[in-house]
Amino acid sequence: MLNKGALEGIRVMDFTRFISGPYCAQLLGDLGAEVLKIEKGVGDNTRHFIPYSDDISLYFTGLNRNKHSMKIDFRKPDGIALIKKMLTEVDVIVENFKPGTLDKMGLGRAELDKINSDIIVVHISGYGQSGPYKDRAAFDCVLEAMSGMMSMTGIEGQPPLLMGQAYLDFIAGTFGALGCLAAIISRPKHGGQDVDVAMIEAALAYSLYAPEHYLANGKITGQFGNRDRVLSPANAFKDKNGKYVYIHSGTDPHFERLCMHIGREDLLAEDKFKYAAVRMANAEAVEIEVQKWVGTQTAYDVEDQLAKLGIPCAVVADMSDVVKNPQLIARNVMKTFKFPDGKEIPEVATNLRLSKTPGQTYKRPPLLGEDTEDVLRNTYGLTENEIQNLKDEKVID
Amino acid sequence: MLNKGALEGIRVMDFTRFISGPYCAQLLGDLGAEVLKIEKGVGDNTRHFIPYSDDISLYFTGLNRNKHSMKIDFRKPDGIALIKKMLTEVDVIVENFKPGTLDKMGLGRAELDKINSDIIVVHISGYGQSGPYKDRAAFDCVLEAMSGMMSMTGIEGQPPLLMGQAYLDFIAGTFGALGCLAAIISRPKHGGQDVDVAMIEAALAYSLYAPEHYLANGKITGQFGNRDRVLSPANAFKDKNGKYVYIHSGTDPHFERLCMHIGREDLLAEDKFKYAAVRMANAEAVEIEVQKWVGTQTAYDVEDQLAKLGIPCAVVADMSDVVKNPQLIARNVMKTFKFPDGKEIPEVATNLRLSKTPGQTYKRPPLLGEDTEDVLRNTYGLTENEIQNLKDEKVID
Repeated sequence: MLNKGALEGIRVMDFTRFISGPYCAQLLGDLGAEVLKIEKGVGDNTRHFIPYSDDISLYFTGLNRNKHSMKIDFRKPDGIALIKKMLTEVDVIVENFKPGTLDKMGLGRAELDKINSDIIVVHISGYGQSGPYKDRAAFDCVLEAMSGMMSMTGIEGQPPLLMGQAYLDFIAGTFGALGCLAAIISRPKHGGQDVDVAMIEAALAYSLYAPEHYLANGKITGQFGNRDRVLSPANAFKDKNGKYVYIHSGTDPHFERLCMHIGREDLLAEDKFKYAAVRMANAEAVEIEVQKWVGTQTAYDVEDQLAKLGIPCAVVADMSDVVKNPQLIARNVMKTFKFPDGKEIPEVATNLRLSKTPGQTYKRPPLLGEDTEDVLRNTYGLTENEIQNLKDEKVID
Repeated sequence: MLNKGALEGIRVMDFTRFISGPYCAQLLGDLGAEVLKIEKGVGDNTRHFIPYSDDISLYFTGLNRNKHSMKIDFRKPDGIALIKKMLTEVDVIVENFKPGTLDKMGLGRAELDKINSDIIVVHISGYGQSGPYKDRAAFDCVLEAMSGMMSMTGIEGQPPLLMGQAYLDFIAGTFGALGCLAAIISRPKHGGQDVDVAMIEAALAYSLYAPEHYLANGKITGQFGNRDRVLSPANAFKDKNGKYVYIHSGTDPHFERLCMHIGREDLLAEDKFKYAAVRMANAEAVEIEVQKWVGTQTAYDVEDQLAKLGIPCAVVADMSDVVKNPQLIARNVMKTFKFPDGKEIPEVATNLRLSKTPGQTYKRPPLLGEDTEDVLRNTYGLTENEIQNLKDEKVID
């Protein structure tokens, strides 16, 4: 390890579960923060979500490395008293409860300011901490629907579609981490503050011109299948075995190179194909010509040939292709967690590549509550007696 | 305005174009950094991309607020000399050229260290700054293909699909900003450093358990349409007018509430529907029952009814719905840029809601080169003579 990371010395109390919050806290941990994940009962729900490797949920391990798990029943008065004691030495709280839950727990901003006014709180929710929908139930899919993401995904005339994973949860988690670091930077001047991440607003922030285009021109940006919205040919084409390869040769230089390569200089002479602006109006016709060639090839051959020509192109990879990708292998993206009983669990390494303070895996994902006593004893200096009392009262276990 | 933002005093030199890089620099500007966007020729390509409002590209305005545009021909020796002079007082460079371009410009790390060793450089690219694919051409669509994102989107047995917008570009831009802030935090201890964001690795970071599931269990996480991968019923259902509404009532309490509400307590008595685990195995059958009810309603009515019951639900909104969303209106998400000649251009406000140092719009998107002289004169103290010389040599214009 080069060093302890960019966030050395930052302590995070992580009350989150499912995806958005845990991912946010994991990013902070990857950057070197000390993350205390507070769990109760059977712990973060995703500990029990498929798929598993042995008896460990891969859903959970992908979102919870670099964390200490502490099992504390914070519904009990002594539990919340313990939390408050710990908060005197915490920099950041991350939570993705329903809005208002921290207040009900006695951890609203007024309370926190009495304990430690430098605390930054990152709130992640579907709709935000204010507004008429704030109390509505939120899952990634529902926010993909409400934000218009679904309405732009899929093939025109066919049903709207979700993205392939709960990407909006991850996007919100990343914005949580970004807001947190901004608050850390401004803390010497402004003290602690609240960061309010709303999934629906994150979706709007990523919608390029779509809402603006409707407001300015009354035009709905709808589904566009696999085409580029501006240039053609750009689509997924089927190879001779039925495997897809994505080719984007919509700019004039790329299209020219493609035509030369496949022996179709004749297309360049046709008015309807010659220039990008007119080619787009004849997208279907030009795609038919490209498909004729791809249909005689294999997808990987097409990728190799066009990559050499500088034409943007890639096999449409499934996960069996992804894990064999030479670029990902060269950059050492697939790694392994080692668990104490010898179990090895696959891991996708952090993508936070900073040359001097790189993101790192400091700690495999924790078993439920495995760090409770250690943190109370060694970080917070509780005596054996105090720890035993908390156990006796079932505040910790 | 409350204050100058979390990044007050940070100056960014922005060499980017298209989406990922401009979005990264815009996030830094939203947080209060002073962003100098360096352009040459006809400027950032997206200035000329559809759609427009009047003669201004909405593609460009959505990615370039809070920036000063400087038109500098940095291919000329005097242009690069000017850039180097400016870099003595710059904190961050953001670039999304092909890897190696900064080196060719004489702005590699060794060079920069001589000028100002505290400079942070954020590199955003498709594949990363190293590895066998680093020189390949990259567009969002190609990375969605190579990373496996496309293979998980869409309906099983039908073609793989892109997401509805170039979300991976935005994701990469957000990671660029995150890495930048981490580097700013660690700068007092470690000095300047490089942040290497690769779109393909960002995609892997968001793939939940998919690569791990293949490595651990040999299982390919493929397309799943609009269903939740774990719980049922969760899908987009068609209302009586053909409009879709997304309902997630896959947990047992949500399903129970839904059945009571639609007068189908009988479903709760059926073994195949009673518990989440078996219900998932009978997803199609349970969806048929939910569809029967939705088909008699309007989508907005369904949303209202189920929201009151705490069941995650939303109309699948298109952009005409989105701009009328009461939550987005209450939170003031849609705003307007005012241009000097009176033109008003719609804007999606920043989602970076920090209570003390909120993201803000300080400056509408710049016209090409409109800030060149002002910055050189007032920020860098160039004399009128020096500015005139640069103009005469066509280094600036």
